[in-house]
Amino acid sequence: MITCFNLRLIALKIIILAGGIFFSGSLRAQNADSVFISRVAHEILNSGVGYEHLRHLTKKIGARLSGSAAITKAEDWGYEVLKQSGADNVFRQEVLTPNWKRGGKDEVLLLQNGKVLKSLSCLALGNSVGSGKNGIKAPVIEVSSFDELEARKDEIKGRIVFYNYPFKNELVRTFEAYSDAAKYRSTGPSRAARYGAVGVVIRSMSHGANNFAHTGGTRYDTAYPKISALALGLEDADWLSRQLQSDKNFQLLLRSYGSFLPDALNYNIIGELKGTVNSDTYITIGGHLDSWDVGEGAHDDGAGIVQTIEVLNVLKKLNYKPRHTLRFVFFANEENGVRGGDKYAELAKKNNEKHLVAIESDAGGFTPRGFSTTGNAIQISKMQQWLPLLFPYGITEIKAGGSGVDIGPLKTVLGTPGIGYIPDSQRYFDLHHAHNDVFEAVNRRELELGAVCMAALIYLLDKYGL
Amino acid sequence: MITCFNLRLIALKIIILAGGIFFSGSLRAQNADSVFISRVAHEILNSGVGYEHLRHLTKKIGARLSGSAAITKAEDWGYEVLKQSGADNVFRQEVLTPNWKRGGKDEVLLLQNGKVLKSLSCLALGNSVGSGKNGIKAPVIEVSSFDELEARKDEIKGRIVFYNYPFKNELVRTFEAYSDAAKYRSTGPSRAARYGAVGVVIRSMSHGANNFAHTGGTRYDTAYPKISALALGLEDADWLSRQLQSDKNFQLLLRSYGSFLPDALNYNIIGELKGTVNSDTYITIGGHLDSWDVGEGAHDDGAGIVQTIEVLNVLKKLNYKPRHTLRFVFFANEENGVRGGDKYAELAKKNNEKHLVAIESDAGGFTPRGFSTTGNAIQISKMQQWLPLLFPYGITEIKAGGSGVDIGPLKTVLGTPGIGYIPDSQRYFDLHHAHNDVFEAVNRRELELGAVCMAALIYLLDKYGL
Repeated sequence: MITCFNLRLIALKIIILAGGIFFSGSLRAQNADSVFISRVAHEILNSGVGYEHLRHLTKKIGARLSGSAAITKAEDWGYEVLKQSGADNVFRQEVLTPNWKRGGKDEVLLLQNGKVLKSLSCLALGNSVGSGKNGIKAPVIEVSSFDELEARKDEIKGRIVFYNYPFKNELVRTFEAYSDAAKYRSTGPSRAARYGAVGVVIRSMSHGANNFAHTGGTRYDTAYPKISALALGLEDADWLSRQLQSDKNFQLLLRSYGSFLPDALNYNIIGELKGTVNSDTYITIGGHLDSWDVGEGAHDDGAGIVQTIEVLNVLKKLNYKPRHTLRFVFFANEENGVRGGDKYAELAKKNNEKHLVAIESDAGGFTPRGFSTTGNAIQISKMQQWLPLLFPYGITEIKAGGSGVDIGPLKTVLGTPGIGYIPDSQRYFDLHHAHNDVFEAVNRRELELGAVCMAALIYLLDKYGL
Repeated sequence: MITCFNLRLIALKIIILAGGIFFSGSLRAQNADSVFISRVAHEILNSGVGYEHLRHLTKKIGARLSGSAAITKAEDWGYEVLKQSGADNVFRQEVLTPNWKRGGKDEVLLLQNGKVLKSLSCLALGNSVGSGKNGIKAPVIEVSSFDELEARKDEIKGRIVFYNYPFKNELVRTFEAYSDAAKYRSTGPSRAARYGAVGVVIRSMSHGANNFAHTGGTRYDTAYPKISALALGLEDADWLSRQLQSDKNFQLLLRSYGSFLPDALNYNIIGELKGTVNSDTYITIGGHLDSWDVGEGAHDDGAGIVQTIEVLNVLKKLNYKPRHTLRFVFFANEENGVRGGDKYAELAKKNNEKHLVAIESDAGGFTPRGFSTTGNAIQISKMQQWLPLLFPYGITEIKAGGSGVDIGPLKTVLGTPGIGYIPDSQRYFDLHHAHNDVFEAVNRRELELGAVCMAALIYLLDKYGL
């Protein structure tokens, strides 16, 4: 719901924006900027390289979870691409990453009188323990929320808990629905285990009109037994719920095979364009190279990786000489550890690096909408003055909020403001962490416009600081 | 390119907008409005009916060109849906429509030394004459523009002209690229025939990353012979162009079967919600029911039709009593005649109807971006004051511009301002007038958000006038 308070805020922001433009008086500078940005757009929209890089990353390398052979292949590819794209300096940072393996074909079977009634679309949650091939067979109890779990805690023991908490369709910004629902994935298994549950299935974090199951990381509370946990496709979650209304005596049989091997050696892959004025101060732009182990990691986060390459490529093509040193970073291990982001911040601190700002694209390769930032009010106000320069390419807001998971540690450790690219979010959770996050789901122009907006913002930050 | 002048305009618009909000002083009213609009959104995003209506229209009825059996089926369906959705009054307006038939399977074959080298992805242009089954065989001349056609007019005689004029990728608003390129489709055949060409093939009006051919209407100049004209898929257009660089002696063989039957009887289908205060004044909302004869007419313009139904449905569900009489209109024959829009305006004039404003959705069922209007500066300024109410649902601009083809005549005949819904346009020309404009290409939430924005604007126009 949009309250009166929200409306005042929106009005206020627009007035600030208008005031900023009105009183800045620097239309001449803005015109030079708009010319440069239009050259960026012309180059990327006509001769962009990101889409073909994405084709390679998704089709030739594919899904690439930390510790897999594919992520190593992706690291080698990324290193070469940064070199070929003209980075002055390309290097790796060692990152020890969690090494979870799915281990087999996940199964959720609904049993009626001991016989299999239906096999449900499912995926074990990332980091979850396996049931082994004998599986876990138990009666099922459906709860719509943690409140219901608590109210019925005496009924949980020996059962498989089915969290059927839906995405809130009415939240237009779908990441809000994701934040709202994701706690069932992250903490649901241990909260159920606390009351004696032997397994968990959850409704996938999606409002997609399909039956793909969506995986994603869970986190066990070590105080309770680790129990097998899987996500169900939405159509099958609805179907299961209807069955349970008619007959409470169904059993579920879960089979999953997840386990951790010893930590793996992965890398942050980094390319630099050396600064010509403040070469000791860094601007970071990046995405994460790893993905979950299903689909092709196209939107999450192949898009962010190839947009990062696109920005480097276009700045080189236009012979742009940055004032600050630009860092193009393919972060390791966003999906189940954030060890790449942690390592990047740790080394930045250890090496006494100065970081001006960091930008991440990790919300899909869809058409541009805005930027969200952990910067302070003065920094936000400064960036909002650039809105007229970015509006023609789809950016309609710059607002306070999150940035990106991988650049979060830089804020924590060094106080570096982070900026997250916000594409349109309506399609993202149709395919997030699922088998359908594939190359074909990415539109070339939408992907390229995102790169245009990121390159434009990098240019403005480099020129005017923050 | 964004010029200094453009920047001043953008700044000015934002200032006007801010001023409007600042001085209107009616935040209380805006809060009541925001509450109503959030109820609209909640209802549509959770219980919308448009997506399932679209499934029926596309999958059960399908492509529906004027004069076809399918458009008659669609009219009957539309009439029933408007009744079931609670319109007070549902009626038809007779419209005599052009009745073009494709007549067979179109073919464009590239011949080398008289042998078929390749069959190219193609579609005859709408309204074009057929070659007959013997086809037209002739050497081909590629031109990149009308300028080149004129410069080489002495080489045209006896040849098939290949217009290989590309979409301008750098135009972010893709309808601008369409306007720029579409003249080759509409006037290209006659301009070539003027110099003795025996046939025409054109590069499809698209920058899609696929090989679908895109049809669409052509218009013959009766001063010159009517020659067969077909559109080529982009990959095949590029391939053909490469072949022609290596060998100028290729021939093309065109086969198409287009012809006109006598005009058909179709209908505008209209439902009304009677006004409670100004019942003699109409607000029109609609889309067009016809489509080209390929694909399923999902985005063009099934989306506009079902969004119109969605708006009616939600206003009824929320028990909204309009001040003005709302007209929900499924226009006949947008694609090759605009006879439905013409008839609607003609009857409005004949019946001395008063029309406040008309809104059309005919740019696809994608995520919302804005509205464009033929209204005057004062009317635009008034609507821009509502931007904070629409921004949460994706509307970021209300600007001067076109409205919709079907509501254009109402402006011409009665001076009624028109408003066109502007969804994001990046994907539209990947599928416009092609075999891939199907139900699966429409995202449920994007479609629904469009309906939310249209319902919100209808509510504001009905309440505050224009």
